[in-house]
Amino acid sequence: MRQRTAMLVVMLLVLLGLNGCQSPATVSELRGTGDLGLVIERATGSVLVVETTGNSVLGRIEGLGDLSHASVVYSRDGRYGYVFGRDGGLTKVDLLTRSIEDRVIQSGNSIGGAISQDGRYVAVSNYEPGGVKVFDSETLELVADVPATYTNAQGETARSKTVGLVDAPGNRFVFSLFDANEIWTLDVAGDTPDVTRYDAGKAPYDALITPDGRFYIAGLFGEDGLSMLDLWQPEAGAIDILPGYGKGEQQLPVYKMPHLEGWAIAGGRAFVPAVGHHQVLVADMNDWSLMERIPVQGQPVFVMASPDNRQIWVSFAHPRNDVVQVIDARTREIIRTLEPGKAVLHMEFTPRGERVWISARDSNRVTVYDTRTLEPVASFSAEKPSGIFFTSRAHSLGL
Amino acid sequence: MRQRTAMLVVMLLVLLGLNGCQSPATVSELRGTGDLGLVIERATGSVLVVETTGNSVLGRIEGLGDLSHASVVYSRDGRYGYVFGRDGGLTKVDLLTRSIEDRVIQSGNSIGGAISQDGRYVAVSNYEPGGVKVFDSETLELVADVPATYTNAQGETARSKTVGLVDAPGNRFVFSLFDANEIWTLDVAGDTPDVTRYDAGKAPYDALITPDGRFYIAGLFGEDGLSMLDLWQPEAGAIDILPGYGKGEQQLPVYKMPHLEGWAIAGGRAFVPAVGHHQVLVADMNDWSLMERIPVQGQPVFVMASPDNRQIWVSFAHPRNDVVQVIDARTREIIRTLEPGKAVLHMEFTPRGERVWISARDSNRVTVYDTRTLEPVASFSAEKPSGIFFTSRAHSLGL
Repeated sequence: MRQRTAMLVVMLLVLLGLNGCQSPATVSELRGTGDLGLVIERATGSVLVVETTGNSVLGRIEGLGDLSHASVVYSRDGRYGYVFGRDGGLTKVDLLTRSIEDRVIQSGNSIGGAISQDGRYVAVSNYEPGGVKVFDSETLELVADVPATYTNAQGETARSKTVGLVDAPGNRFVFSLFDANEIWTLDVAGDTPDVTRYDAGKAPYDALITPDGRFYIAGLFGEDGLSMLDLWQPEAGAIDILPGYGKGEQQLPVYKMPHLEGWAIAGGRAFVPAVGHHQVLVADMNDWSLMERIPVQGQPVFVMASPDNRQIWVSFAHPRNDVVQVIDARTREIIRTLEPGKAVLHMEFTPRGERVWISARDSNRVTVYDTRTLEPVASFSAEKPSGIFFTSRAHSLGL
Repeated sequence: MRQRTAMLVVMLLVLLGLNGCQSPATVSELRGTGDLGLVIERATGSVLVVETTGNSVLGRIEGLGDLSHASVVYSRDGRYGYVFGRDGGLTKVDLLTRSIEDRVIQSGNSIGGAISQDGRYVAVSNYEPGGVKVFDSETLELVADVPATYTNAQGETARSKTVGLVDAPGNRFVFSLFDANEIWTLDVAGDTPDVTRYDAGKAPYDALITPDGRFYIAGLFGEDGLSMLDLWQPEAGAIDILPGYGKGEQQLPVYKMPHLEGWAIAGGRAFVPAVGHHQVLVADMNDWSLMERIPVQGQPVFVMASPDNRQIWVSFAHPRNDVVQVIDARTREIIRTLEPGKAVLHMEFTPRGERVWISARDSNRVTVYDTRTLEPVASFSAEKPSGIFFTSRAHSLGL
């Protein structure tokens, strides 16, 4: 019975044109790229090319390797996506022809990447061997290899895992060294990449940069609080903020460390997933003091602001991960609880915020909600969908 | 001699492929639309299609009528530009084929437009006859005609000029009635458009909406200060802000009323062109109090923040309009004075802010500056260039 269902699904997918083999006639049609995006299918090493005007799937691209923790950045024209796979694979896909343009295995184990402000360079942060590699976005040729070396407790030179890699204004990258307790900036504006090192808190595990590219904030596994570097005055060094935020305060088992990229920065406030609590924290960005705790139904993973900063959408960790809650940013009250499917992994707003796309891995489903009515307006099948990435990210700093 | 130069220019343009008649082979090439834009050539009724990766001109589209005060919005896929001409013409141009897709003369005299959050509707604000018309963005069919009627001082029903039309979250438009001293919201989310009227100050002449789509601010010609409507709580009505901002304070002849769309909103502060003064005003957005006055070299027209909020670029009114000044947003000091040519009319940042494009009408020139070095990196000829509009506007509220 299960086999017949699977066959039916396959046949339906073929009928719906969801296979990777588009006829050239179809894919050579002129079209804008501003409403396109990619949905990661984590179990099958494939991505769906989608469009957000009619909320439809245009095609599938296969052969991208291990996509279990994959993310995507875009070329500045919105045509090419750079997919960072867990297995160290960096794949450049063409959203117009729906095919792989180029692919390199650049390390043994990687954890995400970024594209430079001017679009010329793609950087990947690696666990093994620890460091950052920089590639030409056009050719995927290696242009810089930056090993994350440090002196360990035994006085030996070692290499650190790198995490929380983002792009910053002035054609720089910023990342953290998990083993070395440092934050590095990597300037790629000149002929040779230029590294500057800053001390940070213990064991940074992830990071974000604010939408204006000014504040780089790293979550810490080794101590309470977070480390923040002000890129307008980096010479002041990284400072501690939000003490009591981190794992020292936890009272429940932590099912999944929250993504820092999922912080909502809205109207001078940061809406932050509490680690190990059924709470969203609200911090005043002027002094990073804690203003409020909003009770929610589970441990938050992503806490995302709609583009108009009016709504805060929250996804949750196992075992309460089949629910999404929507908070009104003005009243800080939960205005709706939605059930988009089993194991909700990611949410992505359309650039002007009229809709939000939500992936439910264990329901093999992506659902599109209207942000005004909070009702579903479309949905489609996907193979264990995780991250959703629209091409409008090409136009934002730090995404 | 002048004639021979003109002929040479034409021949060069033809050689460079800058004429409107591209061969189908050239224009049917697949390409992303995320790095495209349009430059208005105001005297010749034409637009240049440009790309910001190589800083080059791809082609010219002609036959758009009177473009002396033209602006552009984009379809959500970034392929089509909607050009609003002064003569009431609404022209839909295809940036990929570089041709006019459709064109309607929708009124006798218009002053700009906007596209709805979901991209379905294009609205135009008209002087004569006064009101707003809404068109289907796909077909340019008229879907709603909203006359701006009011009761005048003689007790008669009259129609007001409309100004300051912007899109707002929730699929709404907002605009001001110059003759009626009102601000209207127009909700196009349902089957029939729904108008709500709010009292405003005297003679609103232009308006802006903050980047998050929350605050609608109208400049007033009839009194000091501005009117502000908080769209998160419109029931509170429009309130007066920045008293002393407007014309009542002026001490110099005003050569050009500043564009309100040119306000820089950066880090909780608004950088505002002073009317009739050689100053940029800095206001605290929490209470709209005046924090500081920055002396500049002339009467500012556009005061624009770079996407990273780090720099404020200022253009000026006649007769000191051949200069652009750059202010450091942190120190509020002028860090550079540039001379991009005669009669600087507009500036547009690339979406992630690595470069800025500047048009100099009377030098027939567009120059591209690197925002880090503040040096020119490219320039090209254009016929009396004015507004520059990149397709990344498709992804922003209120642009």
